[in-house]
Amino acid sequence: MLGVGLIGSSVLMAARAHLPKTQLKAWSRSSHSREAAKVWAAVAETPAAACEGSDLILAAGPIDTLGDLLNTAGPGISTTALLTDVGSTKRGAHDLLATTIWKNQFVGSHPMAGSERGGSSAGKADLFVNRPCIITTPDGTVTPQSQHLQNFWQSLGAQVHLMTPEAHDLAVAEISHLPHAVASLLAALLHDRNPRLDLAAGGLRDTTRIAAGDSVLWLPILLENADHLVPLLTSFEGDVRSLAQALASGDKTAVKALLEKGRDFRQGL
Amino acid sequence: MLGVGLIGSSVLMAARAHLPKTQLKAWSRSSHSREAAKVWAAVAETPAAACEGSDLILAAGPIDTLGDLLNTAGPGISTTALLTDVGSTKRGAHDLLATTIWKNQFVGSHPMAGSERGGSSAGKADLFVNRPCIITTPDGTVTPQSQHLQNFWQSLGAQVHLMTPEAHDLAVAEISHLPHAVASLLAALLHDRNPRLDLAAGGLRDTTRIAAGDSVLWLPILLENADHLVPLLTSFEGDVRSLAQALASGDKTAVKALLEKGRDFRQGL
Repeated sequence: MLGVGLIGSSVLMAARAHLPKTQLKAWSRSSHSREAAKVWAAVAETPAAACEGSDLILAAGPIDTLGDLLNTAGPGISTTALLTDVGSTKRGAHDLLATTIWKNQFVGSHPMAGSERGGSSAGKADLFVNRPCIITTPDGTVTPQSQHLQNFWQSLGAQVHLMTPEAHDLAVAEISHLPHAVASLLAALLHDRNPRLDLAAGGLRDTTRIAAGDSVLWLPILLENADHLVPLLTSFEGDVRSLAQALASGDKTAVKALLEKGRDFRQGL
Repeated sequence: MLGVGLIGSSVLMAARAHLPKTQLKAWSRSSHSREAAKVWAAVAETPAAACEGSDLILAAGPIDTLGDLLNTAGPGISTTALLTDVGSTKRGAHDLLATTIWKNQFVGSHPMAGSERGGSSAGKADLFVNRPCIITTPDGTVTPQSQHLQNFWQSLGAQVHLMTPEAHDLAVAEISHLPHAVASLLAALLHDRNPRLDLAAGGLRDTTRIAAGDSVLWLPILLENADHLVPLLTSFEGDVRSLAQALASGDKTAVKALLEKGRDFRQGL
């Protein structure tokens, strides 16, 4: 395990519980997380040492650290090890790996489980239970490595879906990155207006919850998935303008149609 | 009590628990809710009958039904009764009442507690406990009636704030109506795109939760508060456009600033 944040620590805890015979090794950039990881794993002093002798190597840092992390870990990565990441975008990870000696050892992972809280102290052994975990191969077909990785995530309780990197990145742009961007935009606008938060009900808390996510994680995600996210934001911008115009002109039919479409969607979730 | 939806039924349940000596009478347009209300109150066949002999009359229907409701109830409203509503906008209620014989008997109420579920079956005796309840007088100053109404809401557990109708309507445009509009816009956009909901994590559920609210309640709220809401939506539209441009041009500084501002706001909630 390279990286012991929310996802890395949760994988270690879950593996400790569900794969008791598996030897776990971990490295983290943070000395605090290395200390925390000692409860679940043998802690290595370098990424390469953490990879030595490992059959399955998970890179669990922010997505923009993947290249450096693998380069540093490189001397420890066996030619037979299965290599995966846990990043929220997958096209970039596959492109990065395609130019390395590990291109045939890599299968992408994206466990769809998280929290607005980060770090090893937020880890939970049941974080992946009954949650989707997307795994990606270049053409979306099963390989011996993808089957091995699917078994691993399933043993931690996840519901695994195999996809291409492109299909993954479009899907998460819609169901994760756009909602994140919208929550951040709303929270940032209200930050500037200094509203009467002492009067707020639960709706505001829910609508903006994910805006509390760490920008160290989310900045590279939004930038890397810009190709899918920008058209969605542009479409959303037009919808915001249309609603403002409908409200300004008292167009009940248009406002009602919007509210009912939104309600239909949410009740179907 | 005129109207036995989420708020009306919760007031009846809370009053039953905290004001056991108070006689409760209720009327509802819905025969189902009238039947449900029999557990907590004497049920009247007409709005006027529900008001007869009452010291405190709460109109708890959708905001666009207030005028008709009071007209129908009129013959039963004593000249000494305190009259209030529970609507999510207050300028409109005060304007409406100002042209009636009850203008000196009216104080506005807005309990900031709700649910995306509506109807008497969603009522809860503790709905108002430790939640804000805004009460409004035309110039925002205490009157004997506002003091009486404040005592009533406090006895149900609410934290009461006295404001002018204008200050109320601006505050709720920011902390409630804009978040509702944004959640509905996001949910409606995703409805049209038919995304991979089987892969969604909790963030999408939270961000869109309030979009499940009933359009019968929310359509008149958004329309009536358009004067405050439209400028907010126009500002938000500009922010969405700026983010799309920043992502398209890879402007890390701008995207990071937005994410961090949003995070600051949410962590301060």
